[in-house]
Amino acid sequence: MRIGIDVDSGERPFQELVSGALESSYQNQNISYFLIGKSDRIRDSFNDIESYSNVFLVDAKEFIQMDESPILALKKKRDATVLIGCRMLRNNTIDVFFSPGNTGATVAASVLTLGTINGIKKPSMAAFFPRIGGGETLILDIGANPETNEETLFHNAILGHAYYRVVWDKTEPTIGLLNMGAEIGKGSTNIKKAFNYLSGISSFIGNVEGYNVLNGSVDVVVCDGFTGNSILKFAEAMKELFSSTLKDVFSDKDKGKNKQNLLSYTFDALGIYKEKKRVITERITPKYFGAAPLLGVNGCVLVGHGMCSKRDLINSISLAYKLYKDKYMRKISLNVKNFLKK
Amino acid sequence: MRIGIDVDSGERPFQELVSGALESSYQNQNISYFLIGKSDRIRDSFNDIESYSNVFLVDAKEFIQMDESPILALKKKRDATVLIGCRMLRNNTIDVFFSPGNTGATVAASVLTLGTINGIKKPSMAAFFPRIGGGETLILDIGANPETNEETLFHNAILGHAYYRVVWDKTEPTIGLLNMGAEIGKGSTNIKKAFNYLSGISSFIGNVEGYNVLNGSVDVVVCDGFTGNSILKFAEAMKELFSSTLKDVFSDKDKGKNKQNLLSYTFDALGIYKEKKRVITERITPKYFGAAPLLGVNGCVLVGHGMCSKRDLINSISLAYKLYKDKYMRKISLNVKNFLKK
Repeated sequence: MRIGIDVDSGERPFQELVSGALESSYQNQNISYFLIGKSDRIRDSFNDIESYSNVFLVDAKEFIQMDESPILALKKKRDATVLIGCRMLRNNTIDVFFSPGNTGATVAASVLTLGTINGIKKPSMAAFFPRIGGGETLILDIGANPETNEETLFHNAILGHAYYRVVWDKTEPTIGLLNMGAEIGKGSTNIKKAFNYLSGISSFIGNVEGYNVLNGSVDVVVCDGFTGNSILKFAEAMKELFSSTLKDVFSDKDKGKNKQNLLSYTFDALGIYKEKKRVITERITPKYFGAAPLLGVNGCVLVGHGMCSKRDLINSISLAYKLYKDKYMRKISLNVKNFLKK
Repeated sequence: MRIGIDVDSGERPFQELVSGALESSYQNQNISYFLIGKSDRIRDSFNDIESYSNVFLVDAKEFIQMDESPILALKKKRDATVLIGCRMLRNNTIDVFFSPGNTGATVAASVLTLGTINGIKKPSMAAFFPRIGGGETLILDIGANPETNEETLFHNAILGHAYYRVVWDKTEPTIGLLNMGAEIGKGSTNIKKAFNYLSGISSFIGNVEGYNVLNGSVDVVVCDGFTGNSILKFAEAMKELFSSTLKDVFSDKDKGKNKQNLLSYTFDALGIYKEKKRVITERITPKYFGAAPLLGVNGCVLVGHGMCSKRDLINSISLAYKLYKDKYMRKISLNVKNFLKK
């Protein structure tokens, strides 16, 4: 696999992503890494970079800032990292492109350079959430498109269905429409229209609520990018709230010397708490946290968190490899085509 | 305090709410309980109900189902529980009205019967979330109004600001607009317009993201009812995901007999795990879960969960009493008035 990594557009210094890529490259000799960014300063910070046989520098003089207007910035900065990455993908120089930059700019650059899959107007981004009792639920859109309308929601359903099939190999994943209540007729005008659109799909099970994202009653939850994005970021904070509460509650060992606290202390000292906390955190973390594929464009683009860390990048590369190995692009296009033929 | 309780409109049998009210009435002799519903069947199920000196039955022949269209149902069922409750509130027969029924119907009945506070067009519902590190953040709207527009978001900001002041006695709670990114210019057309509207408020700190609902960087998070509702219900499921994971991880005692598992076993047997789990659950549960006041109407209406349990009702009565004691209605109107004068 050949992966292009935009190392300049994230919110952390470029060194964070470069060192993540180098660590990953060391462990994965079958992957070629194309680091897209200001080559000179990368060389200055990493003197030995030329010694990595599977790492290549692709010079980009500019990048798009987080607060720039995507369309204006793309017009002005013709050789921004994100455009170079998309062009490399189009020219088949790389198989996957990863960017942790301005999401709007990544979406726009992808659509302009690569185009969308036949039948899909706007791309969508999806995240897997762990379920109560095991398994995973897909939610989309999580932020590719801030506007809501019935057609976009319908396309999200098609893309989510196809993506779920590719990743979990399930023939007919069920689809639910996120709403304020399960009853028919609930929600805003757009949602009601989308409900009618979706009713034609055989695996559509109707309205679902926020609760159903985690309770296992549906495989694919369709919503607008604003709501999905808010839920994803809220989930991150909720995970942190839980971790900090867990830590507080299990380390109150100095509040007294009774039997319970003494035992808590021993528990803690043996590292049991730490190990259990690791397992818990792993189980409640959305899968492949760190990046989401831009579903619906003609190329495998992964959108990372702005605050993407070394660890997040390494996870994103694993996701990229899984998608590459599973022939994700071919399967997604085929699934959308079959879906629209029905 | 005199509270009216709609015992027929919830998703559980009426006995659940009646027994909750009776339990609460026993402990709170200073509160009068008006149970609005089918009196005959209440008497049949609770033979001794006449012996409760502070519980009164208000007969209502009909109620609005969860899947009915609010406006049509209100026209047809003139003496539905929710209309009787709102009328009692208007006639000052009760101080607070609680209903776990069809939210749309409760909102419509309240607006039609009680009217809105001067300067506010549509009511809003709010929930407090516990923060990482302590304290509470208010989020609204959580479902009174499914449509999004800049004026509604502006009114949500005013109502949230006023409500936060009443509950936490903070002079200038900060306000943030939920968005897909913190940068100016992010989000849908409606959100951008709302940003401009809100910019005139001195305590407005700008865009916030889903993460900020819990991290303590803002007091009042303003969003549309669809997103707020989805987040609230998602939070409920996330809490359950934590609980079930916690339980799984701390009770893996039979997977071997090594030192760690033996200690886990002792830990469990002494009831430490159970006690810690109780503390954790309490700390991560949104405050006053079970009901939210309908902010912006001329009367104290509490909207409960459809699945409202005995325990939820008892919590809701505590919230009602707090609002009553704190002269919530007078303060909220005054705060909105002062805010709009500025």
